[in-house]
Amino acid sequence: MRTKEEYHASLEAMRPNIYMGGEVLGRADIPGRDILDLTFDLAYVPEYEHLTTATSHFTGEKINRFCHIHQSPEDLMAKQEMTRISARMVGGCIARCMGIDALNTLSVITYMCDQAHGTEYFPRFEEYMKNFQKNDLVGCCAQSDVKGHRLRRPSEQADPDLYLRVVEKKKDGIVIRGAKAHNSFAPLAEEIIAIPTRFLRENEGDWAVAVAVPGDHPGVKLVCRGARYRDRAPELASLHSGKGEIESLTIFDDVFVPWERVFLCGEAEFGGQMALLFSLFHRHSYTGCKPAISDVLMGAAALIAEYSGIEKEDHVGSKLAEFISTAELVYGCGIAGAVKSTKMPSGTQVPDIVFCNVARKHAGVNIYHEYDLLCEIAGGLPATLPYDKEFLSPEVGELVRKYLKRVDEVSVEDVYRLYAWVSDYSCSGIAGVLQYAGVHGGGSPIMEDIAILRTYNMQEKKDLVKMIAGITKPDIDIG
Amino acid sequence: MRTKEEYHASLEAMRPNIYMGGEVLGRADIPGRDILDLTFDLAYVPEYEHLTTATSHFTGEKINRFCHIHQSPEDLMAKQEMTRISARMVGGCIARCMGIDALNTLSVITYMCDQAHGTEYFPRFEEYMKNFQKNDLVGCCAQSDVKGHRLRRPSEQADPDLYLRVVEKKKDGIVIRGAKAHNSFAPLAEEIIAIPTRFLRENEGDWAVAVAVPGDHPGVKLVCRGARYRDRAPELASLHSGKGEIESLTIFDDVFVPWERVFLCGEAEFGGQMALLFSLFHRHSYTGCKPAISDVLMGAAALIAEYSGIEKEDHVGSKLAEFISTAELVYGCGIAGAVKSTKMPSGTQVPDIVFCNVARKHAGVNIYHEYDLLCEIAGGLPATLPYDKEFLSPEVGELVRKYLKRVDEVSVEDVYRLYAWVSDYSCSGIAGVLQYAGVHGGGSPIMEDIAILRTYNMQEKKDLVKMIAGITKPDIDIG
Amino acid sequence: MRTKEEYHASLEAMRPNIYMGGEVLGRADIPGRDILDLTFDLAYVPEYEHLTTATSHFTGEKINRFCHIHQSPEDLMAKQEMTRISARMVGGCIARCMGIDALNTLSVITYMCDQAHGTEYFPRFEEYMKNFQKNDLVGCCAQSDVKGHRLRRPSEQADPDLYLRVVEKKKDGIVIRGAKAHNSFAPLAEEIIAIPTRFLRENEGDWAVAVAVPGDHPGVKLVCRGARYRDRAPELASLHSGKGEIESLTIFDDVFVPWERVFLCGEAEFGGQMALLFSLFHRHSYTGCKPAISDVLMGAAALIAEYSGIEKEDHVGSKLAEFISTAELVYGCGIAGAVKSTKMPSGTQVPDIVFCNVARKHAGVNIYHEYDLLCEIAGGLPATLPYDKEFLSPEVGELVRKYLKRVDEVSVEDVYRLYAWVSDYSCSGIAGVLQYAGVHGGGSPIMEDIAILRTYNMQEKKDLVKMIAGITKPDIDIG
Amino acid sequence: MRTKEEYHASLEAMRPNIYMGGEVLGRADIPGRDILDLTFDLAYVPEYEHLTTATSHFTGEKINRFCHIHQSPEDLMAKQEMTRISARMVGGCIARCMGIDALNTLSVITYMCDQAHGTEYFPRFEEYMKNFQKNDLVGCCAQSDVKGHRLRRPSEQADPDLYLRVVEKKKDGIVIRGAKAHNSFAPLAEEIIAIPTRFLRENEGDWAVAVAVPGDHPGVKLVCRGARYRDRAPELASLHSGKGEIESLTIFDDVFVPWERVFLCGEAEFGGQMALLFSLFHRHSYTGCKPAISDVLMGAAALIAEYSGIEKEDHVGSKLAEFISTAELVYGCGIAGAVKSTKMPSGTQVPDIVFCNVARKHAGVNIYHEYDLLCEIAGGLPATLPYDKEFLSPEVGELVRKYLKRVDEVSVEDVYRLYAWVSDYSCSGIAGVLQYAGVHGGGSPIMEDIAILRTYNMQEKKDLVKMIAGITKPDIDIG
Repeated sequence: MRTKEEYHASLEAMRPNIYMGGEVLGRADIPGRDILDLTFDLAYVPEYEHLTTATSHFTGEKINRFCHIHQSPEDLMAKQEMTRISARMVGGCIARCMGIDALNTLSVITYMCDQAHGTEYFPRFEEYMKNFQKNDLVGCCAQSDVKGHRLRRPSEQADPDLYLRVVEKKKDGIVIRGAKAHNSFAPLAEEIIAIPTRFLRENEGDWAVAVAVPGDHPGVKLVCRGARYRDRAPELASLHSGKGEIESLTIFDDVFVPWERVFLCGEAEFGGQMALLFSLFHRHSYTGCKPAISDVLMGAAALIAEYSGIEKEDHVGSKLAEFISTAELVYGCGIAGAVKSTKMPSGTQVPDIVFCNVARKHAGVNIYHEYDLLCEIAGGLPATLPYDKEFLSPEVGELVRKYLKRVDEVSVEDVYRLYAWVSDYSCSGIAGVLQYAGVHGGGSPIMEDIAILRTYNMQEKKDLVKMIAGITKPDIDIG
Repeated sequence: MRTKEEYHASLEAMRPNIYMGGEVLGRADIPGRDILDLTFDLAYVPEYEHLTTATSHFTGEKINRFCHIHQSPEDLMAKQEMTRISARMVGGCIARCMGIDALNTLSVITYMCDQAHGTEYFPRFEEYMKNFQKNDLVGCCAQSDVKGHRLRRPSEQADPDLYLRVVEKKKDGIVIRGAKAHNSFAPLAEEIIAIPTRFLRENEGDWAVAVAVPGDHPGVKLVCRGARYRDRAPELASLHSGKGEIESLTIFDDVFVPWERVFLCGEAEFGGQMALLFSLFHRHSYTGCKPAISDVLMGAAALIAEYSGIEKEDHVGSKLAEFISTAELVYGCGIAGAVKSTKMPSGTQVPDIVFCNVARKHAGVNIYHEYDLLCEIAGGLPATLPYDKEFLSPEVGELVRKYLKRVDEVSVEDVYRLYAWVSDYSCSGIAGVLQYAGVHGGGSPIMEDIAILRTYNMQEKKDLVKMIAGITKPDIDIG
Repeated sequence: MRTKEEYHASLEAMRPNIYMGGEVLGRADIPGRDILDLTFDLAYVPEYEHLTTATSHFTGEKINRFCHIHQSPEDLMAKQEMTRISARMVGGCIARCMGIDALNTLSVITYMCDQAHGTEYFPRFEEYMKNFQKNDLVGCCAQSDVKGHRLRRPSEQADPDLYLRVVEKKKDGIVIRGAKAHNSFAPLAEEIIAIPTRFLRENEGDWAVAVAVPGDHPGVKLVCRGARYRDRAPELASLHSGKGEIESLTIFDDVFVPWERVFLCGEAEFGGQMALLFSLFHRHSYTGCKPAISDVLMGAAALIAEYSGIEKEDHVGSKLAEFISTAELVYGCGIAGAVKSTKMPSGTQVPDIVFCNVARKHAGVNIYHEYDLLCEIAGGLPATLPYDKEFLSPEVGELVRKYLKRVDEVSVEDVYRLYAWVSDYSCSGIAGVLQYAGVHGGGSPIMEDIAILRTYNMQEKKDLVKMIAGITKPDIDIG
Repeated sequence: MRTKEEYHASLEAMRPNIYMGGEVLGRADIPGRDILDLTFDLAYVPEYEHLTTATSHFTGEKINRFCHIHQSPEDLMAKQEMTRISARMVGGCIARCMGIDALNTLSVITYMCDQAHGTEYFPRFEEYMKNFQKNDLVGCCAQSDVKGHRLRRPSEQADPDLYLRVVEKKKDGIVIRGAKAHNSFAPLAEEIIAIPTRFLRENEGDWAVAVAVPGDHPGVKLVCRGARYRDRAPELASLHSGKGEIESLTIFDDVFVPWERVFLCGEAEFGGQMALLFSLFHRHSYTGCKPAISDVLMGAAALIAEYSGIEKEDHVGSKLAEFISTAELVYGCGIAGAVKSTKMPSGTQVPDIVFCNVARKHAGVNIYHEYDLLCEIAGGLPATLPYDKEFLSPEVGELVRKYLKRVDEVSVEDVYRLYAWVSDYSCSGIAGVLQYAGVHGGGSPIMEDIAILRTYNMQEKKDLVKMIAGITKPDIDIG
């Protein structure tokens, strides 16, 4: 396992291909690196290592769990718990699930494809994966194509490149063209795993492509946008002050990929299965990180209530109970997803699709409501809080401090620290990113509905009602 | 294990003490007996016996799971699955959980009380329980006191009997007085287990009483109300037609209980713990039966959509996805409740309190909404459907049948059967009972909030936010 | 204006053509007649006559407002207020809106059709209407066709009669065939006004038919279903005990209609307009009756809270505020619908379509939730309340009364009366009918969405955002 | 009426007393001035002047409606419509309601206080108001005290200054001390009207104080926080780019106020009435501005759907219908509030309290949900959109433009403009401010519940149910 210092060195050796705000940047100061750092650090914290490390099924060695292919329900539960614990420390996305979720996906589908088509993707994948584990790499997943006209299929778009596709097959590899949107933390990943985003028809094999490329591979361009927490005077700063996160529109501008990094190329039916399975793994990840965000939101609401003297009020209690319900319904169904998981022919453990999807959907439909709950308890101050400069000012600081005081037991500095961070977290660009990510990250509620409806055994329920209503005869003597 | 015929014989031997509609009834024709019958029948169905039977931890013998004290997470999961499968066959309460949930409660609390007070409740309970298992008895739980003024404690009521209490202690037993409301299916139980309904203060020992009495014990009076599905001509009847359920206000009119049937008497602090633990077991039961009711409602909605030709409509799909989400969030958290369960000193396995409470609450806050969803898909017909007499009438039957026809593939008789049953299920007194039971059975959402807030580790979340906001220092180097 | 006694005499003279429960009934004892009686009585109550009577625009005479064609915004507001006041007295539908809403519709559309096609429907309608006013008749509206396969148009059904249609045109009139569902209170109406239920295509003129026929006209068959409140001993009875309501599937079995009673026959485009306009008038009516039902539900909830000693609890207050919000948002938008109403060429005042539709929709999407709120405050007792026979029984009555007692100030008889009525109102077949009617009566939420989306000026909002986003130039210098 | 240029000159003449980000600022470049400019400009636009101007009841002259004391229901409706039209142009608060709402409040309460106490506040107010109208001034309202411990009354706080209070009475005036929070746009107001924020007890007369002071009055310190829309290259800029809004914590650091500017001083019972009445006027204002924000949000959602090719999708339609419902329920109840308004003894027209409160509450409880709806339709792009620098970049601009293209008919520049503005509006600090303001501005939902419950005639509803349930006799023969 690497340390974060080794990770930094690796990042710094990469070619600058990050385009942001008119500059071309290297990876020395990309917002969000501290988040990935935590995934390295936690692997060495004794209290957490039963969660943050795993045993490689290739080598039997101890590895960072973010490099592990799940082998058992226990692995899935550990992955979920690790995600909750680490995501709540950073107050958001822990940034390293996408990569490992994509790799777990490849482990399953390459095997199935080889069985069906006699291809050799699975052994290729295993080689790639062994190296990935050995070097404790950071990956990300480039999945969402830019999609153009939303009702047109890849093959129907005015520009065929609006979904990533193979434009040339060569002896030693393939050339791909297209762009993947919403590629969170891509500038901090050493490996970009690109997979399809939707079901494909028989004639859409060109879009059935999965590859892994280094983040600074020739032709790869990361067009980025960042969001940062506001900077603050050190004595009032939060753990997040000045830090942030980064998003990428990842462009594959005729990128050559050698065959040993190609894991699907033309087998259309597995394109859709890959898309679906990545969604499943990623929705399972969300059963860890979404409760983490609820943890942070409810903690903030409870602390504001305490600092304001209203923690015993009925309406505060019922709002806190709403947070808890949301967090634990999601988390509980993630556990159920592990309990009802399936071991695939490749050996990978795949969580239950219904439980993971209802859980992810429940998180997604509640994220704005959770912000609403925090806002209701917080009052208007996060939107109108004076700046740290005035709080500390020789001229008006004393007055500002006088008037921000709440209950006797809590210093006005702590009141300020809390409100300043709540302001950052709920009333800033970061809040917007968290809200959008809460709805769309890992798949929007409408996508979960589709997954649920496709999978669920509704016929069984209709048959049940036919029997009850007297339309069919019961097979056992009941009721 | 008994057969239903043996159970019937036992019921019929009981003293008539059921007061309903001006009559005093025996137990030969109480609505709902068919539901309890099913709990006997299913224990003999090979397909289900891995769920519906268990192994007695006293004798190692195969017993009906409704007589079992849970020994492992697997027991809790089997109990939950059995409940879902059987409850959906009867379209509602399976009627035998209350008894076994109360007995599991007694198994834990009698042990704890003995440890704390040197009492001998636990061995007494074990004797009682062995006999209960051996005779495969049907129990019910009389918990909800009638409560009088809702803001007054038992000791503050104008009439102290508004909570069940001990009015006399004798050498060979005790005399109790009071009444328990909402006692579902009590007339069909051979044993009534009465336990406290709330936390009690030190000076409220008189109300800390738990006993088991035969259903026809001297002084026990069951004042009942029934609800029945409408009767219908046999050729149009549903499985439920003419059947129903029954509720009891169970009055203990100075009832003498011998010591061997007394499991708490005066130890106030264990009164509250008993109340809480029964709620927990019963809320776990609800993670089985509430999804069963969702199964039935969603099956009905899906079948109506199919029979009307609209099953592919977007709004139908999104409504079905809502049913599924509700059902599976509740069910999934029940599973999590078993996974995170605890083995108590008595040996009994107790499910996790947070998961069971958020699950039960989610069911409770959604039941009316689920009826709304069915109503929206069904249209107005369940409220305005002609009677079976007209459907079959020589005079207007042909016209009625002509005008109730929907898609070509489905006979008008099947359309009628479906709608007639949906009318019974969603637009009748039975519907009202299901709605009220959905909200209040096993504890109202407001009670779950209280249980959640009492239990949840909110301090951990506040500490997390203190650390993030910079109020306290992190103990590990994070973010 | 008639008295109810005159109305009764008229009903009793009608031919028995009501098929219910295997019998053919006359109109002497149809459930719901007391509701229509109230519409006669209230016209003579001085306190209400400014609302319940109007001035005929034909004769200048004082008429029952239920026979009035609205001439002004004030008329619409008086209609709305009358509806709220009278509907809440009967706890549900006041039963006489459908007729007058249909007649207001005819007043507008017959005029427009005459202008467009040179037909003579409007003068014909005026003659009919004068007679209707003079005789103070009770009308109902038969609108909802039975519809068969829900995705097929009238002309695409396997059986063309699944939408009411003209099967023959004769010199002196037309012959119609079909059936109308959900025809509330039709057996108590002297006149049935039948109008189309949907938009029609050019080739669907046969289905563009509007007529008025006497309720006992040859060939008209009313296949009915009733719901009644439970009977109760007189000393415990509610105002509703033993009373009820009635629904009809109204079959037109080759009914001959003379030309003077035909108000549309073949002009397809006005079929749809008639359907839409009736919906509009009827949704405006709902802005009166739906708040009335909220009035009853909230009054019940508040009274239960008072009788239980919890009326000052926070959660009770917030639930009552929810009832108020629902009631007054709906009612307030009905007022806005009158304020923003339009005088049509025929002279009829038509309310605003957006306000009436958002109001009706808001009522419809909240009705189950309102029942849920009542249920939460009521607790389980409405589902488990002992019968009046036991409450009054010499044997157990004293015990029952002892244990149903709540706060000191309220007699147990009053507690019982309240709960018994709440049980009827929220936990019985009547509750189901009120719930279904709340969702679907006057048009389901999904129909209101369609009406809103068709009508609303969304282009204006898109243009606004184009201007703000910098896509178009602002026409004035703003912001 | 002034022009905006005259207004600017007035602002620039004011003393710098704005503390923001470590600087002391004058009023030359305060974010949000363009918003107030619009209130001057619109008074001269012929299309709108029937709304944006009014007739002074003092002089009969045409004045800016933002300086008007409402005299009729029509005035209230015009105020509401003006607010909707102007607020939607700026996409948020129009910044000039607070002042005029406070002045309307003073007009009513000063009169009532004079009647009750023989004070002379009303004539004093009239002099002040005439001058305010004549000079077409901009006012703001400083109402929300900082409040300290939220469960303690003003007189119970550790620091009595946590509610604004009179610290000294002199011959020529009074000295006040305290601070008012959440004082939107205060730096752009020439006059600050300070009024109490809550009900006061008899012994709390020191806190019953209402005054008007110039914004740069000695001792007045505005500690501010601003939010700005992101700057953008001119060819891609929105109307809002680079603009913003400003909030103030307004500190009264022993401010001397001459008697002619004092409108309440010690009459405790009118403190509460003033607080309540300002809330009422301001909640009526919100029935104009909140629908305006819905207008903008729904326009954005509809335009995104159009640009993405999904505007005909069912789920888009149903989401748009939700926006419309929210907007028009709120707006319709504002109209009802005007229709049911009351003329007070002072001549001022006061809107109905129930309609205004249910409307404001409905807006408040839906604002986060509306953002959620927009987010669901928008997809993740607002959170991940590349910056304008990259969109226009010679190096990667062509690629960015290629991959952001959607439907054929819409240029990628327009797609970008739309998304960039949506990003600003829904995924930035401005979004946070709009969300917090949507919930708390003009009073939180919990405050509206209190106002509703205090005012509503719930007794009438309880009496209704008593009559229906048979507890009391009906006074007329009904049902």
